[in-house]
Amino acid sequence: MESDAGFKAAVEEAKKGAAEGGIPIGACLVGADGKILGRGHNMRIQKGSATIHAEIAALENAGRLPASAYKGATMYTTLSPCDMCTGACILYKVNRVVLGENKTFVGGEDYLKQRGVEVVNVQSSECEALMKKFIHDHPEDWYEDIGE
Amino acid sequence: MESDAGFKAAVEEAKKGAAEGGIPIGACLVGADGKILGRGHNMRIQKGSATIHAEIAALENAGRLPASAYKGATMYTTLSPCDMCTGACILYKVNRVVLGENKTFVGGEDYLKQRGVEVVNVQSSECEALMKKFIHDHPEDWYEDIGE
Repeated sequence: MESDAGFKAAVEEAKKGAAEGGIPIGACLVGADGKILGRGHNMRIQKGSATIHAEIAALENAGRLPASAYKGATMYTTLSPCDMCTGACILYKVNRVVLGENKTFVGGEDYLKQRGVEVVNVQSSECEALMKKFIHDHPEDWYEDIGE
Repeated sequence: MESDAGFKAAVEEAKKGAAEGGIPIGACLVGADGKILGRGHNMRIQKGSATIHAEIAALENAGRLPASAYKGATMYTTLSPCDMCTGACILYKVNRVVLGENKTFVGGEDYLKQRGVEVVNVQSSECEALMKKFIHDHPEDWYEDIGE
């Protein structure tokens, strides 16, 4: 499950973000049938954006969809989702959130579970290394991204 | 408080959205000093967007800001904020959410309070009328916007 196309796409997106000089977090929304609905990465640096986190980018790139499209869907993300992205997953009733790691940041995992969303932590050392490097090199950009 | 520039701007944004044929929800983020940081309205119809709700638009239009800019800030919105927008206000530690009404939709008000955000309901009949008309005329667009 955790090594499937959705998680691979999320990691690819995180690496794209890193290559662009951005915050290296990627996400990919996969429907119940296993097909990718949308994918994207954090665009704070690239677009001067306060809201285009990876999960928001994936949802936005999936476009307008009826509620039925999110039924049984999984949000793959390379990092524990922040409160905004947690809320976005709850809004659209995504079934499951698979996250790369939560060693560099712990987001709304407990609240997701409380609202009935399954949470899986892949504990990816690759995702962790991407974040650790970015936080080391650009701490001010990272803390801005999480409102701290 | 509730009749100040921030709430007026949110209502103006909702009306702009209505004039564009969009979902009539507006928002305005005001800093602790009373100055408008950003304003915007729901863009689901206009941009085919799944994530540009009014509060997200206001945060996005405010641009990249340090955490200090949100300190003591108020998010004015014409409707009770959905789970995503609730999470966005929590992420940036907005001090207060002033909402126009919650008769047509009840969002994350309880969770905002639980996370220490003050919530004020203006009970605006104007905001309610805008939403009632839209929901009556375009129920499918409205339910899509709240993932139902």
